[in-house]
Amino acid sequence: MAIVLGPNQYGKAEVRVVAVDRATPRHSLVDLNVSTSLRGDFTAAHTAGDNAHVLTTDTQKNTVLAFARDGIGTPESFALRLARHFTGAQEWITGARVAVESYGWDRIAVGGQPHDHAFSRTGGEVRTAVVTADSSGPGPGLHVLAGLTDLVVLKTTGSEFRGFPRDRYTTLPGTSDRILATAVTARWRYTSTDLPWDDAFAGVRTTLLETFAATHSLALQQTLYAMGEAVLERHPQVAEVRMSMPNRHHFLADLSAFGLDNHLEGQLGAVVYHAADRPYGLIEGSVLRDDVPPATVAWLGTPGFC
Amino acid sequence: MAIVLGPNQYGKAEVRVVAVDRATPRHSLVDLNVSTSLRGDFTAAHTAGDNAHVLTTDTQKNTVLAFARDGIGTPESFALRLARHFTGAQEWITGARVAVESYGWDRIAVGGQPHDHAFSRTGGEVRTAVVTADSSGPGPGLHVLAGLTDLVVLKTTGSEFRGFPRDRYTTLPGTSDRILATAVTARWRYTSTDLPWDDAFAGVRTTLLETFAATHSLALQQTLYAMGEAVLERHPQVAEVRMSMPNRHHFLADLSAFGLDNHLEGQLGAVVYHAADRPYGLIEGSVLRDDVPPATVAWLGTPGFC
Amino acid sequence: MAIVLGPNQYGKAEVRVVAVDRATPRHSLVDLNVSTSLRGDFTAAHTAGDNAHVLTTDTQKNTVLAFARDGIGTPESFALRLARHFTGAQEWITGARVAVESYGWDRIAVGGQPHDHAFSRTGGEVRTAVVTADSSGPGPGLHVLAGLTDLVVLKTTGSEFRGFPRDRYTTLPGTSDRILATAVTARWRYTSTDLPWDDAFAGVRTTLLETFAATHSLALQQTLYAMGEAVLERHPQVAEVRMSMPNRHHFLADLSAFGLDNHLEGQLGAVVYHAADRPYGLIEGSVLRDDVPPATVAWLGTPGFC
Amino acid sequence: MAIVLGPNQYGKAEVRVVAVDRATPRHSLVDLNVSTSLRGDFTAAHTAGDNAHVLTTDTQKNTVLAFARDGIGTPESFALRLARHFTGAQEWITGARVAVESYGWDRIAVGGQPHDHAFSRTGGEVRTAVVTADSSGPGPGLHVLAGLTDLVVLKTTGSEFRGFPRDRYTTLPGTSDRILATAVTARWRYTSTDLPWDDAFAGVRTTLLETFAATHSLALQQTLYAMGEAVLERHPQVAEVRMSMPNRHHFLADLSAFGLDNHLEGQLGAVVYHAADRPYGLIEGSVLRDDVPPATVAWLGTPGFC
Repeated sequence: MAIVLGPNQYGKAEVRVVAVDRATPRHSLVDLNVSTSLRGDFTAAHTAGDNAHVLTTDTQKNTVLAFARDGIGTPESFALRLARHFTGAQEWITGARVAVESYGWDRIAVGGQPHDHAFSRTGGEVRTAVVTADSSGPGPGLHVLAGLTDLVVLKTTGSEFRGFPRDRYTTLPGTSDRILATAVTARWRYTSTDLPWDDAFAGVRTTLLETFAATHSLALQQTLYAMGEAVLERHPQVAEVRMSMPNRHHFLADLSAFGLDNHLEGQLGAVVYHAADRPYGLIEGSVLRDDVPPATVAWLGTPGFC
Repeated sequence: MAIVLGPNQYGKAEVRVVAVDRATPRHSLVDLNVSTSLRGDFTAAHTAGDNAHVLTTDTQKNTVLAFARDGIGTPESFALRLARHFTGAQEWITGARVAVESYGWDRIAVGGQPHDHAFSRTGGEVRTAVVTADSSGPGPGLHVLAGLTDLVVLKTTGSEFRGFPRDRYTTLPGTSDRILATAVTARWRYTSTDLPWDDAFAGVRTTLLETFAATHSLALQQTLYAMGEAVLERHPQVAEVRMSMPNRHHFLADLSAFGLDNHLEGQLGAVVYHAADRPYGLIEGSVLRDDVPPATVAWLGTPGFC
Repeated sequence: MAIVLGPNQYGKAEVRVVAVDRATPRHSLVDLNVSTSLRGDFTAAHTAGDNAHVLTTDTQKNTVLAFARDGIGTPESFALRLARHFTGAQEWITGARVAVESYGWDRIAVGGQPHDHAFSRTGGEVRTAVVTADSSGPGPGLHVLAGLTDLVVLKTTGSEFRGFPRDRYTTLPGTSDRILATAVTARWRYTSTDLPWDDAFAGVRTTLLETFAATHSLALQQTLYAMGEAVLERHPQVAEVRMSMPNRHHFLADLSAFGLDNHLEGQLGAVVYHAADRPYGLIEGSVLRDDVPPATVAWLGTPGFC
Repeated sequence: MAIVLGPNQYGKAEVRVVAVDRATPRHSLVDLNVSTSLRGDFTAAHTAGDNAHVLTTDTQKNTVLAFARDGIGTPESFALRLARHFTGAQEWITGARVAVESYGWDRIAVGGQPHDHAFSRTGGEVRTAVVTADSSGPGPGLHVLAGLTDLVVLKTTGSEFRGFPRDRYTTLPGTSDRILATAVTARWRYTSTDLPWDDAFAGVRTTLLETFAATHSLALQQTLYAMGEAVLERHPQVAEVRMSMPNRHHFLADLSAFGLDNHLEGQLGAVVYHAADRPYGLIEGSVLRDDVPPATVAWLGTPGFC
């Protein structure tokens, strides 16, 4: 028996780079959080402290900043540029993973007119992109995931949950009308490395939102699947979708002790819920085309269960 | 010398109540985080463990939920209802502070049409309201603060910082063109307890945003003051504004080691900045009318330096 | 009526400075998070963008780092040095507030022996110090607060809560045996600016812990008061104590639906509780000597309700 | 081509259960955060909203609380009980993942004596356990991971970093004496499902700490590997170790502008560093025995890159 080094990677996490296009008085900006990781032959660094193969994480940070000087473009294209660079940088580097979070900014309206150089943050939602370059395998070796996190959505009705099995520990009654709320994390894999990335992202995002809204939900699993299915139906360039959806429980308040009803048919006043933090249901699932080859390496290092 | 009980209060923090108006198929919702605190004669609880005066925090939570059954309305009016109730509940309760965070929801558009009962969270910004009832003093005893937190704004130009004094420890060069970015926390005190609260809030928020955008900044202090001054000029029902504005530094990347310029006049490509986390400048200040009596009790317990 | 500048301050927040004493092979370190704020005549910066009085926040950061070069000593003495420096730096600076968080490190034991230069972080608890210099008043103008935050403590018994009043919204039953858990934030004001700070801190901390443990609690208010009273009784150099104690509710699990009892007298197995996040009770109070003059300025800008 | 459901799981996340052994006046407690996930045939729930196979997440929560009534024991044994139960609960459930975070409590000392029922939280470090049951494969189908997160450690010397390659974007000088600081996340897989779990955990933790301290570091990769190798050498029941170690950079402060040296040989006073937040290096790696079969399913859903 021997003790050996297993899979490993290293890089610089969370380089906060902001690129401003000031070519005209109407500025625009791109605001990213970039994390890079390199894969390859780094055995000597681990076993002997020999750093001859270690392109430093400081250099990776510098590269991110320097590459932004030419303009960032989209998260996906910027990550592609970086991933290609790193895997070509030195022969022992056989793979790179570049993960990007992108923060949106809206122009501030002054007197109804969008301002040239003043902006406000769009919200809590974050757009993500992950590019993995892998020169160790036989294939083209470049994979692009896009996604979003913290897209918080809620339906005040149109959500049921019943017909589940009961065992000794089951006390939950079924319901035909509940609040359904979640914070969507979705990531999808493209089959191309050359797309109009902003349009593609916007299209998938719209599909996710519309499907969440329009689906009469019998289970959060059903909603998740419907959202993924709709993405694949409407966006042929997407091979698979993975989603994680916490069930942000909203419990109907029991006001009977105060002589108050709640959640009546046609109720006047308001129906009152208590929004709970923990514990929460957590639904995770994937939807995919059965004729697209899997790409395990594309997902390596990305949070998720599969 | 004696050891005595000093100022004290207690209550229930962070009751997450969601009220849905389902009177018609076009639902609406109000999503709040409510914290209540009571003031009065609670000495025996402290010194003898005698709870005869302690309206429990569980009861306070129940009251929040029960009051929501009639509909919440605006954060300010809901907090006023609760504060009036608690101070009238028992003779030894002479004051109450009700602090509300309000989370915004937008209707999801499906096929271009806003949906009847599906919503997405507006963003990171939070609307706040604080009502303080104080029956111990001579005055009317009700005070209303409105506000917002985490309104993240940024200007890509139109911001200078120079002309500051230099001592042994000063190394910063002055600049006539920098990014100015901050997360605005603002709170303002109304002179009335009966206003169209949503309109008033929206009006002040617009003034804050427009003034941030339109002010050519020579210092973050100047921007802060201009924002507060504009609020008082345009909104006669506001007596004072208090603001806290962290300076979210964006440092110009030094790319010269890579043979790259940055931040040239009329530069092609992008100007590259590194967004820093800590440390950060922190500018806090208030703007007020000199003919309005102060209301110390209105601010008691609200974060801020004064 | 005129619109005027009200109270204001500015500074550099969260300078993360680590000072290592390497004079001998047995190293020691001090790990701080320092925030400085200056008060004085900064009107022109606000109203005219004139920075002639604005000692920059970058300079304040540099000063913190430079002063650490001589060694930091205790949080209190370091904050005193900085506060004295800033108020003496320029005539228009009449006050300074220096707030310090201190993170503890323990030596790692190797083969039972504490290592010379390897350490592990002590835990979640943070020691705090706030020094306020105020040359605008008649007095000596230096105030020292010490404190701690996030000292998480729990009692599995020895806590009751009953005898409280009941109104329409009261449903809570009283209890003579519950879990009492809280995360203590305590801050206390010294009457001296020259003390053995580490010993003083350690002494007060021990008193807080011992009193929490030894007090049979009839209310969290009672426990809070007992802790503050004990500090004043045993530590004559302390003038007042302010505490904030969230009631981290642990609800007895109702297992009756599963045919299981819980919380029986002399129960075998375990008594099962569910630890809740929100909402939570929040108890805030202060204990003080009635013969010590108050020092409002000492607390300005420190979170808390009074 | 068809669109199909891919891998999926669901469960209840973050059940905060506290179990108190009150059999004698000397109480003890176990404080856990338990997350359960079920795997199996849940296709109908996704594609048709048919919940006949969905053992509800509420039932999973109830089961956690009910099982705690018998006492929790160790995190590993409690997770094993739950995982066995869920996979045997219904024929269509073929797998379960039970992830546990465990929070430590120390007895408060009163007058030097550990108290019977009063405790303080041990610190920021969290002990973890993950049990995966998988009845779909040929093998025994039970896997146990143990681990820890947020073990924050630092060396003030005994760390070098040099000899790395340089490219166009490399500016970092090498160093033979730097601070090395990290927050260790480590997880290791046992080859047994029946061990003295607390002793095993304590032993591995000690090995990790001692090796971090005693290793003269030439690279964080080298330290990581040395820690993993030592665990495997000293603990035969461990098959592999996976670690994630962010490089918490401590930059030597450049005080030369103030006429101050820093980091001299035999320097009096202190060597001053600035602790940075972002970006940070991130080193991830695994160490394993080459004669132990891999167990991919054991790691499914656990954060990490491989």
